[in-house]
Amino acid sequence: MGALDGGRYNVKLKNGVKLGSEIEREEQTLAIEDAVKVLLQGLGEDVNREGLRKTPHRVAKALREGTRGYKQKVKDIVQGALFPEAGLESGVGHAGGEGGPVMVRDLDLFSYCESCLLPFQVKCHLGYVPSGRRVVGLSKLYRVADVFAKRLQAPQRLADEVCLALQHGIKPKGVVVILQCSHIHFPNIDSALHGSDQQRSVQVLVTSGSGIFDSGKPDEWGDFLCLLRNIDIKHCNGLNDKCWCPSHSSTKVGPTNSGMVTAVASIIDSLGEDPLRNELLGTPARFVKWLTNFKSSNVEMKLNGFAHTVDPVKCNGSVSHPEHRIYTELNLPFWSQCEHHLLPFHGVVHIGYYSNKGVDPMEKTLLQSVVHFHGFKLQVQERLTRQIAETVSLLLGRDIMVVVEAIHTCMMSRGIEKCGSNTATIAVLGRFLTDPAARANFLQSIPDSSTVG
Amino acid sequence: MGALDGGRYNVKLKNGVKLGSEIEREEQTLAIEDAVKVLLQGLGEDVNREGLRKTPHRVAKALREGTRGYKQKVKDIVQGALFPEAGLESGVGHAGGEGGPVMVRDLDLFSYCESCLLPFQVKCHLGYVPSGRRVVGLSKLYRVADVFAKRLQAPQRLADEVCLALQHGIKPKGVVVILQCSHIHFPNIDSALHGSDQQRSVQVLVTSGSGIFDSGKPDEWGDFLCLLRNIDIKHCNGLNDKCWCPSHSSTKVGPTNSGMVTAVASIIDSLGEDPLRNELLGTPARFVKWLTNFKSSNVEMKLNGFAHTVDPVKCNGSVSHPEHRIYTELNLPFWSQCEHHLLPFHGVVHIGYYSNKGVDPMEKTLLQSVVHFHGFKLQVQERLTRQIAETVSLLLGRDIMVVVEAIHTCMMSRGIEKCGSNTATIAVLGRFLTDPAARANFLQSIPDSSTVG
Repeated sequence: MGALDGGRYNVKLKNGVKLGSEIEREEQTLAIEDAVKVLLQGLGEDVNREGLRKTPHRVAKALREGTRGYKQKVKDIVQGALFPEAGLESGVGHAGGEGGPVMVRDLDLFSYCESCLLPFQVKCHLGYVPSGRRVVGLSKLYRVADVFAKRLQAPQRLADEVCLALQHGIKPKGVVVILQCSHIHFPNIDSALHGSDQQRSVQVLVTSGSGIFDSGKPDEWGDFLCLLRNIDIKHCNGLNDKCWCPSHSSTKVGPTNSGMVTAVASIIDSLGEDPLRNELLGTPARFVKWLTNFKSSNVEMKLNGFAHTVDPVKCNGSVSHPEHRIYTELNLPFWSQCEHHLLPFHGVVHIGYYSNKGVDPMEKTLLQSVVHFHGFKLQVQERLTRQIAETVSLLLGRDIMVVVEAIHTCMMSRGIEKCGSNTATIAVLGRFLTDPAARANFLQSIPDSSTVG
Repeated sequence: MGALDGGRYNVKLKNGVKLGSEIEREEQTLAIEDAVKVLLQGLGEDVNREGLRKTPHRVAKALREGTRGYKQKVKDIVQGALFPEAGLESGVGHAGGEGGPVMVRDLDLFSYCESCLLPFQVKCHLGYVPSGRRVVGLSKLYRVADVFAKRLQAPQRLADEVCLALQHGIKPKGVVVILQCSHIHFPNIDSALHGSDQQRSVQVLVTSGSGIFDSGKPDEWGDFLCLLRNIDIKHCNGLNDKCWCPSHSSTKVGPTNSGMVTAVASIIDSLGEDPLRNELLGTPARFVKWLTNFKSSNVEMKLNGFAHTVDPVKCNGSVSHPEHRIYTELNLPFWSQCEHHLLPFHGVVHIGYYSNKGVDPMEKTLLQSVVHFHGFKLQVQERLTRQIAETVSLLLGRDIMVVVEAIHTCMMSRGIEKCGSNTATIAVLGRFLTDPAARANFLQSIPDSSTVG
C-alpha cells in the first residue's frame, strides 16, 4: 500500500494536463461526494462543520479504493507469476511432474456487502493442486482474491468468483477456497437500548471448489481440510439461499428519506455497478436505514425518556460513608459511526467511579443508555469518551474515569488496511485526575479478555 | 495497498514522456538489479535460470518500496488530519479543553534492519495526550510510524524517530511509543546441522517518550502501560548499547567475496542511504555472510558427510512385520531463502512414513539434516517439500508424506504486506498417494500448536 493518501486517484501531471480516464475518475468522485453531502444533510448534520467538511471526499476515496476490483484483471496479476517446477533432477525424483497440494492460510481481506454497503472482514484460505509442472507465486493467490473482494459482494459469490478466477488463471488440477466472513451486526437503536441486541457480528463460513474439487470428492478435499485444523467445515453455513447480511433480519422499516436513497443509488452507479442488479435493488434503502440509526435527534429523545427515571441525588452516593471506594461497570457494548469516514466503530466502554454503594440494575441500564446516547451519532472516539464521562458525572458524582476500547472499520477498509489493531481512549474527571494510583487501580480491573477485538 | 504490482515506480505516460524523478528512479532500480545479479553469481547460481530470471527486478522493487520512507514527509501526512475537539457544549462539560490519553494498539509494521538488511517485524503501540483541543486521525499515527519504519533501522532509533515526529507533527502534551520487535534469527548452517541453533527469532521491546513523558514521570506513563495489559514494560530490553541483530552474535566469518560486499554497498547507496554511516559500515559483509548460508555447494558437502553414516538397509524397515504402521517425525525446523525475492522463509517440516519400527536418534538427526540440506539453498517451498520427500524415501522406503508449514518474509515485506499468513505444502509418495485415510491419519497427527506462526 502507498503510505500516503492520494497517490492513486489524484495524479496530476507536471504540465497540468490530465488523462482521460483521470478526468472520468474525478467526475465519479465528485458525484459520490455530492451524494454523501445529501446523506449528511439527511441526518440533520451541518456539512460545513469542521469534522465533516472533508468527510464527503474521504468517503468517496474510500469507496473508490474499496471497489477497485472492478477495474482489475486477473490476467495481469497471474501473468509472469507462474513458475515451472519440474521436480528434482531426472533420475532421482519419482513424484512425477505433478505437484502436491499448496495452501496459503489466514490471509486477511475485507470486502463490501452488496446488501448494505458496509465492509465485512474475511479470513481467507486458498489452496490448489498444481498441474503441468507450474506453481504460482504465493502472493498472487492473495492478489487474485483481492480483485474480487474489492467489489460489492456476498460471501458465496466471492468464494465462487475467486475459485473460478484461480482455476482459469493458473489452470491447476483444482482449487479450493474457504472463507470465514464476519459482518458487523446491524444495531437497532431500540433493541440496543433495551439490551436485547448485543450480538457483535454475524459469522459465515463458505467454500468453493473447482477442477478435481468441483464434483464433490471429499477424499480430495480431505488434505486441505486437515490443514485447516481449527476450522470445522461441517459448520459451513453459507450454502443456503438466505442472505447473511443482518440488514435483512431487522423487520421494522421507518419512514425512508427518498432523497437519501436516491443518493446511495447514485453512489453505486458511480462505482461502476448497476443499481438495478437484483441483489442491489434494496441496498440503498438498507444503507439509509443503517445510517438513520446514527441520526442524533432520534437518540436524544430516547435518552430523554430514560433520564426522567433518574434521581440524581440517589445516585450521587457521597453521604453515608466517608471512605468511598472505586466501583466499576465494565464491558458496556457500544456502536458508533465515525464522522470522518461514515464507517462504524464499535467496542466496549468501561466506567469507574467513587461511591459508597454499588449501582443497582436500573442504574446499569442507565449507564448503558448513556453509552448508546452518545454512541448512536456521527462521532469520534475521543469525543465519545469525554461525553460519556461528563454525562455519567451528572449521575454518579464528579470522580469519574471512562475507558473506551474500539475497533474502527476505517482502519481496516480504508487507506492503511490494518486488521487487528484497536484504539483505547481515556477520560478522567475529579479525583482520578490527580490520583495516578486510582487510575491504575481502575485500569487494572479491566479484564485481559476485554471483549474488543 | 495497490493490489497490482508496478503502480508506484513504473508510471509511463501515454505519450511516452517520462518525468525526471522517474528516470532517476529507473536508474537506481537498474543499479540495484545489477548488484543483485552479482550476489546471485557469487552464490554460484545461474542468473538466467527460470526461477531467478526476474529475481533481480523483484528484489530491486521490494527494496525500493521497503525503504520508501526516505522520500516521505511527516508534514504531508499530518497536514489536514488534525481535528479540533473542543469538548461538549459549553456549560455542560467540565473536562476542559484538554483531551484524555489516546492509544492505538497492535499495529503491524515491518522495517529493514540496518545491521543486516533483513526485514524485521514490529508490533507497534502509539499513544499521545492531545493538547490545544486537537486530536489527530487515528490512521495518521500509523502512517507516521510507517515513514520511519520504511528505512534502514534499529528498534530504539525507530521508536525515537516516530516519537519525535509525532511530537513535532501533532504538538500534543506528550507521545509514547512502544515497539515489540522481532528479528529473524540468523541461522548458522553448522550449528543448525548440529541441532544447537534452534532459536527462531530475537525479540526486543523498546519505548520512547516525549513531551510530558520525556522527563521520566512513570505516573504519567502509567495509563498507557495499564492499557497494554499483556506487555511487561519491565522487560524492556532494548535500552542497552548492544546491537540486537543476531548477525552480530555469530563470530565466525568465512572468506568474504569482496565483489558481493561491494554490490551490497552499492545497493545501500542506491536506496539513498550513506554506506559509510557508522551503523552501516559492516552491513554489506553481514548481508553477504547471511546469503552465503544459502550457497548450495556449501551444504551439499555437509550432507555428503552425514550420508556416509547411514545404512540404508537398516532404515528401510520393511522386514520383520507384515503390518506396518505410520511413524511420524514432527516439527523439524528449517530455514530457507526464497529464490524469487532473496528473502527468508522458515518454519517446520513434518514427515510421515510407514515402518515397523521407530526412528532412532541417529535417524532423527539424519532427517533433520536432510531438511537442512534442501533448506539452505535458494528455494521455493513447493520444490523443497518434494525434494525432502524424495530424499527421505531413499532412507525410509517408498511410502512417504511430507508437510512443510512456513512463514514467508516476502508476504510481509513485499507488495501485499500481509502479516499472519502462512503456507502449507504437501508431497506424497507411495501408499499415501492412493490412501486418503492414511493421509488424513498423518495430517491429524500434526498438533494444533505446530510451531509455525
